[in-house]
Order: sequence, then structure tokens, then C-alpha cells
Amino acid sequence: MAFKANIKVTLRPSILDVQGKAAQHALENLGYSSVSSVRIGKYMEVIIGEDSRAEAEKVAIEICQKLLSNPVMEDFTFELEPVN
Amino acid sequence: MAFKANIKVTLRPSILDVQGKAAQHALENLGYSSVSSVRIGKYMEVIIGEDSRAEAEKVAIEICQKLLSNPVMEDFTFELEPVN
Repeated sequence: MAFKANIKVTLRPSILDVQGKAAQHALENLGYSSVSSVRIGKYMEVIIGEDSRAEAEKVAIEICQKLLSNPVMEDFTFELEPVN
Repeated sequence: MAFKANIKVTLRPSILDVQGKAAQHALENLGYSSVSSVRIGKYMEVIIGEDSRAEAEKVAIEICQKLLSNPVMEDFTFELEPVN
């Protein structure tokens, strides 16, 4: 059995998001003045072949902490859904 | 009134995700052999100051098409939630 983890990694609110600011200014120049904030993070879809949801959740937390996010600057959340 | 658009931008399934492949190999080297696929996209939180949900949705679709995604290689989805 396998699970798909849909992982969102976002910059912590206290961290300046320069990429997001650049996107916001570009949108302003395109005429979208109603856009007041853009923050850019990562979205990852990971297939984890474990038999139980508990095992898959353990793996998802570990890979987020060790590789997929930077715990100093970023937060992560995920949802698990069974596949086949 | 304002709406927050939670936008996911993902590579189309037919496009090879080299960044995701690299992450998957790194996870394999760390001992996570149960991870069989990693695909990496973007997650964006955008505050749109429009009075109606319909207006905010229109802006969200336009900015995704014009700036936040590459329509040739990527798909986007979003959810809108009212703020304040």
C-alpha cells in the first residue's frame, strides 16, 4: 500500500519573502493593485510506500525535517491520502 | 474586504521533474527507500483586496495565467478564503 503526502512548505511569517515581494511588484506593474501581499513557498507531492498511515506519517515528518524544509526558516504541513 | 488565495502550481504530469528526482535520490541515500516519487511545485499565498468572491477569483485566475505559473509546463489550482 502507498500514501501520497501533499506537503506545503512556507517561510515563517517573520522572514522577509524577497521572491514574493518581487512578484507583488511585478503584479502592481501589470495593474493588479488589489494584490497586497504575495508569499511564495513550495508544494510537494511525495509517494510513500508504507503499509500503515502511521508509518507513512512518520516518514513524511522525517523527510520534511531532514531534507524538504529548512527548519530554521520554514514551516511545513502535509495531508496524507491513500493511493491504490 | 479581502480574500486569501492559496495557490498550488504543479508541473504537468508529462514534464520530467529533475528537482524532484534529485530530492528522491537524496532521500534514498538517507535510507528512505519507501519514497517512490517526489514532485516539486510552488505554493503561494496571495492577499487580494476585492469586495466580492467573484472579483477575487477573476484576479486570481489572471495573475496565475500571466505571472505565477508557466501555462506551457504547469497547472494551477487555488482556494479562496475571506480574510477580515
